Amino acid sequence: MILLRHELGEVLRDVRTAQGRTLRDVAKSSAVSLGYLSEVERGTKEASSELLASICDGLGMPLSELLGLVRERVEHVETLTAPVTLPVGPAVDADEVSASAA
Amino acid sequence: MILLRHELGEVLRDVRTAQGRTLRDVAKSSAVSLGYLSEVERGTKEASSELLASICDGLGMPLSELLGLVRERVEHVETLTAPVTLPVGPAVDADEVSASAA
Repeated sequence: MILLRHELGEVLRDVRTAQGRTLRDVAKSSAVSLGYLSEVERGTKEASSELLASICDGLGMPLSELLGLVRERVEHVETLTAPVTLPVGPAVDADEVSASAA
Repeated sequence: MILLRHELGEVLRDVRTAQGRTLRDVAKSSAVSLGYLSEVERGTKEASSELLASICDGLGMPLSELLGLVRERVEHVETLTAPVTLPVGPAVDADEVSASAA
C-alpha cells in the first residue's frame, strides 16, 4: 500500500534540500515547529491541510506544484510495485502463441 | 488559504458521482465507514494516508491519478484566488511609462 504521507515527506525533503535549506530555516519560514516539520518529512506524521499550506508558503512553492511532484513520485512507486502480469489474454492472439510454440 | 482536504473532498465526490455510485457503495468497496467517507468528501475531515489508499481502491483509481486530478483543481483555484497585480515594477521600463503618460 502506497501511503501519501511517505511520498509527500520525501518530496518535501527533496525540495528543501534542493533549496540548500535546513529544517530549522524552513520551519521558521513556515511558522511550523521544527519537530512537526521533521516528522512530516520522515512520513511519520500526517500534515494537516493548514500546516501543509504553511509549509508550501515557507518553501515558496504553490500547493499545486507540490502536488504535481508528489503525483510524479507516487506514479513512479506504483510502477515499481505493480504486480508482474504475463502477456496472456485478449491482447495476445492465440494462433500467434501456438505458432511461436511450434 | 487553499486547503488540500477541501479540494480533495470535491474531487473524490466528482469521481464517485461520475461513476454513478452512492456514498454507501463506495464506502463498502473501500471498507471505510459511510460517515467517514462523507466527512472526507465534505472536506471536514483529513483523510489518513491509509484510508485514502482504501478509498482509491474502492474507486478503482490509482493514487497518482487522484493526485493528478487534485493538482489540476488546486491549480485552477490558485488562478482564481491569485492577487491582482498592476503591471508596474521591474517588468515595465520606466521610460515607456513616461512616454505613454505624455
